[in-house]
Amino acid sequence: MGLGSDWFTEIDARSGTALSFRIRGLLHDEQTPFQRIEIYDTTDFGHLMVIDGCVMLTTRENYLYHEVMAHCPLLTHADPQAVAIVGGGDCGTLREVLKHSSVQSVTQIEIDERVTRLSEQYFPELCEANDDPRAQFVFDDAVAWMANAEEDSLDVIIVDSTDPIGPGEGLFNVAFYSNCRRALRPNGLLIQQSESPLIHRQLHLDMRQAMGDAGFVDRHPVLFPQPCYPSGWWSGTLAATGLDLTSFRSIDVTPLKTQYYNAATHRAALAIPQAWIGAAGDNS
Amino acid sequence: MGLGSDWFTEIDARSGTALSFRIRGLLHDEQTPFQRIEIYDTTDFGHLMVIDGCVMLTTRENYLYHEVMAHCPLLTHADPQAVAIVGGGDCGTLREVLKHSSVQSVTQIEIDERVTRLSEQYFPELCEANDDPRAQFVFDDAVAWMANAEEDSLDVIIVDSTDPIGPGEGLFNVAFYSNCRRALRPNGLLIQQSESPLIHRQLHLDMRQAMGDAGFVDRHPVLFPQPCYPSGWWSGTLAATGLDLTSFRSIDVTPLKTQYYNAATHRAALAIPQAWIGAAGDNS
Repeated sequence: MGLGSDWFTEIDARSGTALSFRIRGLLHDEQTPFQRIEIYDTTDFGHLMVIDGCVMLTTRENYLYHEVMAHCPLLTHADPQAVAIVGGGDCGTLREVLKHSSVQSVTQIEIDERVTRLSEQYFPELCEANDDPRAQFVFDDAVAWMANAEEDSLDVIIVDSTDPIGPGEGLFNVAFYSNCRRALRPNGLLIQQSESPLIHRQLHLDMRQAMGDAGFVDRHPVLFPQPCYPSGWWSGTLAATGLDLTSFRSIDVTPLKTQYYNAATHRAALAIPQAWIGAAGDNS
Repeated sequence: MGLGSDWFTEIDARSGTALSFRIRGLLHDEQTPFQRIEIYDTTDFGHLMVIDGCVMLTTRENYLYHEVMAHCPLLTHADPQAVAIVGGGDCGTLREVLKHSSVQSVTQIEIDERVTRLSEQYFPELCEANDDPRAQFVFDDAVAWMANAEEDSLDVIIVDSTDPIGPGEGLFNVAFYSNCRRALRPNGLLIQQSESPLIHRQLHLDMRQAMGDAGFVDRHPVLFPQPCYPSGWWSGTLAATGLDLTSFRSIDVTPLKTQYYNAATHRAALAIPQAWIGAAGDNS
């Protein structure tokens, strides 16, 4: 049963699955110095951004990822003021972060300026907060940026990167996490996208291990639906030192104006499959 | 980017998406009096059963669906003794139901005996409890069976059917729900698979409405990951009259021996996206 030319397909060779979107056409195709970026017009999911063959986001359901990746860490922190977003070039996470009135500055370090420029063009709703004076854009290598970041300067780091292949590779190791830890203030925390809990479980565990080796004693998965990624179930991993990552300021949820995120779905994101409990490398 | 003959693809035309599994080969292909059943050997998900072109289950992750669809209703009920499973021919739900020591009888009404016979052959682990003396198999039309069921004879009805197209069609309307209500004892409850909360939302709402029209005053979605179905996020809908569907016997979870289900993931299944709260037709 073949799919014709009116479909975009991402093959996830690691899991033996593929996900396809029916398309009306290709709107943009560009090889940047870092990666290939394609934008499609789909029949049912709005615009679709693809980087190096992997689906990044669609108009219709990017809110699931962006809301969880922003609000879970920011409401777990007692009073987040200084935030860094690593990657995040589509600006959807940034928009959610800027909904928090406690936040005084957000620095977004995206290696490829073209991601942001194309998002302004094809996902303008995600960029609607980009003029907020609290937002600063750095188009540079986040690995180097974090190595040079001022000690004790950040409350929350959100690693909103591509997979650990290509430009994102240096964001998944002990050296990077150690630099994040140094840049975080006491009671600061990190969240990083950590792929599918169902089909990329080893990456999930390797990341936990590397975070632990860098001194992040506390780690906890957050799990959420994300239909445009392999398996349809995705994850972030929270990391901190001496913080209860299952507790959050539920009282501050209401003003956020979200589609998916609320106190109940935050708690749902923290629920761990029974098979993981007590499993090697997973202490939560 | 085409997929070759070593892939099975299900196209969900309603949502403009398609999901594919890489296969080693076709193990079985049969047209029964009711439907076409195919069994594939996949590279990463074990065996795959397909009915009329739609993925039904895989060896690797069917536990997500079966555990939630069985344990959520059975632990919401105070003391389930008599259970009916409508559809459920692969016997995965039945196996989970039989883990409950309170259950004295389970009647499974599957229209197509070939589903069960092929499951015995290709998913033997799901059929390992089929010899339990509490289990009764009826291979007949569940619509007629329910219309003739004795009044006040059941504690829990689990509708584990195909989509509302083809043989499953008569299971998604007021007449069927009214018969279920009549067959249920006081404090009895129903759960029915209700497709993707993300891409089949209208079906979800229509089912709620029909359940309400049949006198099921209380309805609540249960949401769970299911990577082999469109969007990767799936749902059941609980229905009852005068029962708190958000409360359950968490104390009785431990003996169940599950992979996904536990008290935390049960609570997670009850968490509703913010956009649904107060939305038309959705009072939970």
